[in-house]
Amino acid sequence: MAKDVNPPRGNRDFLPLEKQKREQVLGVIVDTYRQHGFQQIEAPVMEDLARLTSGQGGDNEKLAFRVMKRGEELQRAMADASGEDNLSDLGLRYDLTVPLTRFYATNRSKLPAVFKAIQTGPVFRAERPQKGRYRQFVQCDIDIIGDATELAEVELLNASLDALAAIGLPDATIRVNHRSLLSANIAALGVAEADASGAMITIDKLDKLGIEGVAAEMETKFGADVAAKAGEWLRSIEGQLEVPAELSNLFQIIGARHPGKLRFDPTLVRGMGYYTGQIFEIEHPGSGSSIGGGGRYDGMVGRWLGQDVPAVGISIGFERAVDLVGDDLLGAAEGLVLIVDEGTEALANSLRLQAELIEVGEPAVRLERRPKKLNLLLENLATQGFGRFATVGAESVAAADLQIKDIA
Amino acid sequence: MAKDVNPPRGNRDFLPLEKQKREQVLGVIVDTYRQHGFQQIEAPVMEDLARLTSGQGGDNEKLAFRVMKRGEELQRAMADASGEDNLSDLGLRYDLTVPLTRFYATNRSKLPAVFKAIQTGPVFRAERPQKGRYRQFVQCDIDIIGDATELAEVELLNASLDALAAIGLPDATIRVNHRSLLSANIAALGVAEADASGAMITIDKLDKLGIEGVAAEMETKFGADVAAKAGEWLRSIEGQLEVPAELSNLFQIIGARHPGKLRFDPTLVRGMGYYTGQIFEIEHPGSGSSIGGGGRYDGMVGRWLGQDVPAVGISIGFERAVDLVGDDLLGAAEGLVLIVDEGTEALANSLRLQAELIEVGEPAVRLERRPKKLNLLLENLATQGFGRFATVGAESVAAADLQIKDIA
Repeated sequence: MAKDVNPPRGNRDFLPLEKQKREQVLGVIVDTYRQHGFQQIEAPVMEDLARLTSGQGGDNEKLAFRVMKRGEELQRAMADASGEDNLSDLGLRYDLTVPLTRFYATNRSKLPAVFKAIQTGPVFRAERPQKGRYRQFVQCDIDIIGDATELAEVELLNASLDALAAIGLPDATIRVNHRSLLSANIAALGVAEADASGAMITIDKLDKLGIEGVAAEMETKFGADVAAKAGEWLRSIEGQLEVPAELSNLFQIIGARHPGKLRFDPTLVRGMGYYTGQIFEIEHPGSGSSIGGGGRYDGMVGRWLGQDVPAVGISIGFERAVDLVGDDLLGAAEGLVLIVDEGTEALANSLRLQAELIEVGEPAVRLERRPKKLNLLLENLATQGFGRFATVGAESVAAADLQIKDIA
Repeated sequence: MAKDVNPPRGNRDFLPLEKQKREQVLGVIVDTYRQHGFQQIEAPVMEDLARLTSGQGGDNEKLAFRVMKRGEELQRAMADASGEDNLSDLGLRYDLTVPLTRFYATNRSKLPAVFKAIQTGPVFRAERPQKGRYRQFVQCDIDIIGDATELAEVELLNASLDALAAIGLPDATIRVNHRSLLSANIAALGVAEADASGAMITIDKLDKLGIEGVAAEMETKFGADVAAKAGEWLRSIEGQLEVPAELSNLFQIIGARHPGKLRFDPTLVRGMGYYTGQIFEIEHPGSGSSIGGGGRYDGMVGRWLGQDVPAVGISIGFERAVDLVGDDLLGAAEGLVLIVDEGTEALANSLRLQAELIEVGEPAVRLERRPKKLNLLLENLATQGFGRFATVGAESVAAADLQIKDIA
């Protein structure tokens, strides 16, 4: 018998009020995306391990939980002694993007030419657990596959800004860059094309290291000339945010509906190697780190199909967003407790009145037998979101007979 | 690079319309349970393997997907050569009941004295895939922990029957038995107490084997005397369904709100060993097998706490229920497609009108650039739930300017 009754390391239980808030926030996000013509789909939690470790997932591939083979296959693999890699055939998804590319390849013939997908669900990473980082967490993605035009970016940003406003985060903004601009800027520093991704890794640390720190790391990696130019470049763009021609159309269109919500950041990198065009990162004044992001990844979906398929996606970091949402912003309805007196008639009345009250719109009608200490029960239920109560006895025939009181 | 682009064996992709239906059905079930005062909670998808294989999960324990240890722990386990059991530390949940008992033990101090839980989510079983049986599927449970009285059973059955009616399955009925009655009946056949569970396994096959088949298996297991009595007993109760005193109160109370929905079945067994009281199985004329079930399991929750805690639960088999729900029963709203003409103004108008139409209640407004073959696009979108369209040009300034047409 297990003595430890905690969830596994890095995993969480969600109690009623927290779960309710999460469901509400997720529901509002999904509703907003659906209003914008996106459609929910679902892929399995497990995918073939070979697919999860084929190079599309970047550093996250190393964090995939591996599921052991079963039965005879496991016996053969154990006997084979060819090592741990041979013992597992499936893995838990570590993001929703790699499964989406597989989903699209599987189902393309049944999908619209321009496929606008909503995916929400748990993903799993075998990370060292630490504050705010979990081994199971929810992602909340929209992607447009099959549209090479900027309309796709426009739709993603509009829908995301609407969704963030709808959950009470109208102050969220989005930093924007373009991989071509970034590449050109890096080339202008004198970095060889083969070293560009190494330079991106360093520039990505600007928030942490500051300009001097980035210059120092550039010097170690690429020499003093590059470092000097990098320092000069970073200083020259500080506070100067004139939108380049490549992005001016996007800024103008989004600005018409969401003025001031986009910010050009020529140093924005976004970690994943697969981005090919515009890249985004969602920020909020209440959070020290980004609360989402995305970009165009035209090369990735086609891998399973042997042809290029344009694609662009954006993800709201659900765990961080939900932390920013106030507890009462979504206006949780207050439940009603019916205290059921002893006896068959009181019970029959309670059940009938419960149905009647639900019928007229009560969001939650909870039955409780009268306890020895009524106050204790009511205080406890108040912390669970039940704000009112009434006693039901043999004489409580109609809903009008009930004396509904607030739980003080 | 993987060439096979199918989901893993026994797993499914859900396309937009199917996913929408699943979300609607699940939403209606959860809403109904919440109206009855139950509250959603969530436990992790993974639990410690030791807990998942501690004997509470019955035959399902053998079907648990095992997650491999990671990093140094895996290296040590591999070097140890103590076999496959030592290589995994976590497992995927195969039901929602075993995790619920762990959740309750972990969080009891923060929960109401009578805890009424809703749990929905995917569970995983390494079964041989076959028609209608999947390796990932959704369960939909309500449980009441901490109430030893029959009010708990009443609430579960009322809420379940309401939920089934709400998703368009008002013809669902529930078979009821009591483990004490079943035990007494088995004892009366002359089966020793130690053999009772073996006898239950045989009686549980009545639907498949018929009375003679059950009698034959009883003869093999327990001899001719027991077999003769079993045959006699089963024939005597055929068609005779008088409700015994132990269940008459429940039948009367539920009958008042849901007349004719309960049926006493003295041969109902329910597989799991942990049931201690009333047991239930949900049936529907449209399905050859049960679409859910549950019962009282007073001994199980206390295991992690070292004390008895009363508990009773019921589960709607979501996959079977959703198959029974008609495609139009929930009245899916029809989306609107805006065909965006060339040019900056048409795009600006489209984005503004999209927002306006959402504001006045359109459930889904989808933007599409004008394609070469408009009819093809519209036909395709009609199969995705979009029933109307309008063209937006430079002159489409107000929503009133739009000519909204049905997609023929």
